[in-house]
Amino acid sequence: MKHLLSCLAALAALTMAAPAAAQFAKPEHAIEYRKSALFVMGQHFGRIGAMANGRVPFDAKAAAENAAVVEFVSKLPWAAFGPETDLGETKAKPEIWKEMPKFREKAQQMQDAVAKLNAAAKTGDLAQIKASFGPAAQTCKACHDAYREQ
Amino acid sequence: MKHLLSCLAALAALTMAAPAAAQFAKPEHAIEYRKSALFVMGQHFGRIGAMANGRVPFDAKAAAENAAVVEFVSKLPWAAFGPETDLGETKAKPEIWKEMPKFREKAQQMQDAVAKLNAAAKTGDLAQIKASFGPAAQTCKACHDAYREQ
Repeated sequence: MKHLLSCLAALAALTMAAPAAAQFAKPEHAIEYRKSALFVMGQHFGRIGAMANGRVPFDAKAAAENAAVVEFVSKLPWAAFGPETDLGETKAKPEIWKEMPKFREKAQQMQDAVAKLNAAAKTGDLAQIKASFGPAAQTCKACHDAYREQ
Repeated sequence: MKHLLSCLAALAALTMAAPAAAQFAKPEHAIEYRKSALFVMGQHFGRIGAMANGRVPFDAKAAAENAAVVEFVSKLPWAAFGPETDLGETKAKPEIWKEMPKFREKAQQMQDAVAKLNAAAKTGDLAQIKASFGPAAQTCKACHDAYREQ
């Protein structure tokens, strides 16, 4: 059952229209686009992490604002992993294009995890934010470990 | 009266908390962040332009999706024009930091214009999108002409 659900999720991720179906003029635009979106997301995600880990004082409003950006931007990069965007100024491993369904599944897991983080951030409860931050960070790491050059 | 309103808008832009009050670890992160956000926005804006100008067939759903991204991301770059982010890998002119209220006013004009574009895109009416795309593009150009190296 768990395997079936995982397969269905992968299929859904494959067939689901991205919120901004990509039309890049050149492969390098796609590469710059996905790096840009991931960098923006990472900055906001890191600010929540700093609060979740106690490095900076907790500010519920800032956490909620950052989490809203993270969830929104988390939907964007994936349309930019199209054909012919595997070469160039990118750390993306060729495995992405060899096992796209698995890659998309990991991308979906991240989006699901940051949606939960955003829901937690909306409550303004630091404990809930802490509880959902770790799993979200794990989805980043899992995908980077598998699909990004160090 | 018009002047007063313009001053109030500039003041509001100055004092208004950005949706994601920025805390950048290093100036170069701020620079990369604002370039990233503006690049992402530009890609989506360009796709609406291609439809508004008839270069690609009109797709109401795609236009609405792109406009929603443009409006959301239009709020992000401005928190990254903080102190000490005027040097480095940037085309941002020093005038930005010398006349920050004027810069912020132009940034606000862009945000207002793309909010109107997004409202137009939600109607699914190409004529309304065309009518609001030009003014939005003008706000990009006005700010680039004044504050970005060619």
